[in-house]
Amino acid sequence: MARFVAIEGSEGVGKSTQITHLIQWLQDQQIDVVQTREPGGSPAAEAIRAIAIDPTYKSMPDKAEVLLMFAARADHVENTIRPALARGAWVVSDRFTEASYAYQGAGRQIGSETIEWLERFVLGDFRPDLTIVLTLDRQVADGRVIARGQKDRIEVAGEDFYRRVEQAYLDRAALNAERTVIIDASGTAEAVHQRIIAAVQEYLF
Amino acid sequence: MARFVAIEGSEGVGKSTQITHLIQWLQDQQIDVVQTREPGGSPAAEAIRAIAIDPTYKSMPDKAEVLLMFAARADHVENTIRPALARGAWVVSDRFTEASYAYQGAGRQIGSETIEWLERFVLGDFRPDLTIVLTLDRQVADGRVIARGQKDRIEVAGEDFYRRVEQAYLDRAALNAERTVIIDASGTAEAVHQRIIAAVQEYLF
Repeated sequence: MARFVAIEGSEGVGKSTQITHLIQWLQDQQIDVVQTREPGGSPAAEAIRAIAIDPTYKSMPDKAEVLLMFAARADHVENTIRPALARGAWVVSDRFTEASYAYQGAGRQIGSETIEWLERFVLGDFRPDLTIVLTLDRQVADGRVIARGQKDRIEVAGEDFYRRVEQAYLDRAALNAERTVIIDASGTAEAVHQRIIAAVQEYLF
Repeated sequence: MARFVAIEGSEGVGKSTQITHLIQWLQDQQIDVVQTREPGGSPAAEAIRAIAIDPTYKSMPDKAEVLLMFAARADHVENTIRPALARGAWVVSDRFTEASYAYQGAGRQIGSETIEWLERFVLGDFRPDLTIVLTLDRQVADGRVIARGQKDRIEVAGEDFYRRVEQAYLDRAALNAERTVIIDASGTAEAVHQRIIAAVQEYLF
C-alpha cells in the first residue's frame, strides 16, 4: 500500500544520509519508492526552489518566501507525489509542510495561522502518513553544516532563528503525535537508521 | 506628491502603448515616474514571472500560479514600488492586484475570497491610488493578440476564461469606484490617451 513519508529536521542533522539508507531499505523490502525533496521535487517546483534559495535575492520579503514554498508544494504534490501514490508507490520526501511551520512560521515569524491557511488552501486534508523529525544537539549539527561549505539564502539565518525552527518542529510533533515521530539523530548513521526503520515498521506496516 | 497608478485590462486592449504615452506625458509635467509591471518589476519577481508564464509548466496547478503571483507582488512592492513612492516618485505599473482578481480569482476560478486573503496578507491596506481598466470589444482585442504571435502559458486559456476575466474587472471596478476608472480603449491610441489623461487629472491632481 502506498505510503507518504516526510523526513524533517534542521540543517546538519543528517537527513540526506538517512534518506539514502531508508530508500535502500525500502527497496530491499521490494517496495516501489519515489525519492523527492522540498522545496522542489517537480520541474516547476525545482525552478521555484532555485529562486527561493538564491543568495542574490537577499532582500526578498519573508512573505514572498512562504508563498514560494507553497507554490512549489502545490506543483510538487500535483505532479510528483499524488501520481506516485496513485500507482501504489511509496514516496519519501526530504522536507514537506512541517518545514514551512518550522522555517517560515517560526523561524521567519510569519506565524502558524498563516501556514495553516496556506496548508488548507494548497493541500486540503492531504498529509504525510508519517513525518520523521530528526533532532540533534545544535553544536554537533552546526559542525556538520560548516564542514559542508557555503550556505544558501535561508541557511545564513542566525542562532535564534534555528532555536525557533527546532522548537517549532517539537511543538508540531506533539500536536500531531499520531502521524509524527521524533528521532534522536546522535550516534552512528547505522544506529540512527535502525531507529528510523523501527519507526517506519511501527507506523506504516 | 507620490502616486501609484495601475493599468489593467485583458490581452490586446492596448495597455503597453497607453503606458508608454502616459509615462511620456507625466515626464512632460516634470514628474519623476517609475514604469514597472506585474508579474515582475523587481529582480526576484521577474524570475518568478519567467516560471509563471513558461509554457513548459503547462501542468502547473492554478493554486501554484496564484501563489507565484502574490510572491512576486510581495517582492515587487517591497523592493520597487515602496522605495519609489518613498522618494516621491510616481509609479505606473502594467497590472497589479486587480489582475489577480480577474485572472486567477475569476479566470482560473480560484474565487475572490482567496485573492482577498492573499491581498490582505501581502499588502495590508496598501492599494494603488488609481487603477485604470481598459476595455475593448473581445473580437478587436483578439485580433491584436493574434497579430503579436506566440501566446504564453496564461494567454492560451480559452474564450470563457477571457469572458470571466473581463467581467471580474468590471465587477471589481464597481466595488472600488473611488479608486478605479473604466476607460473605453476603442478608437485611435491618441483618443484613448486623452481619456486616460483626463482620468489621471481628475483623480490624482
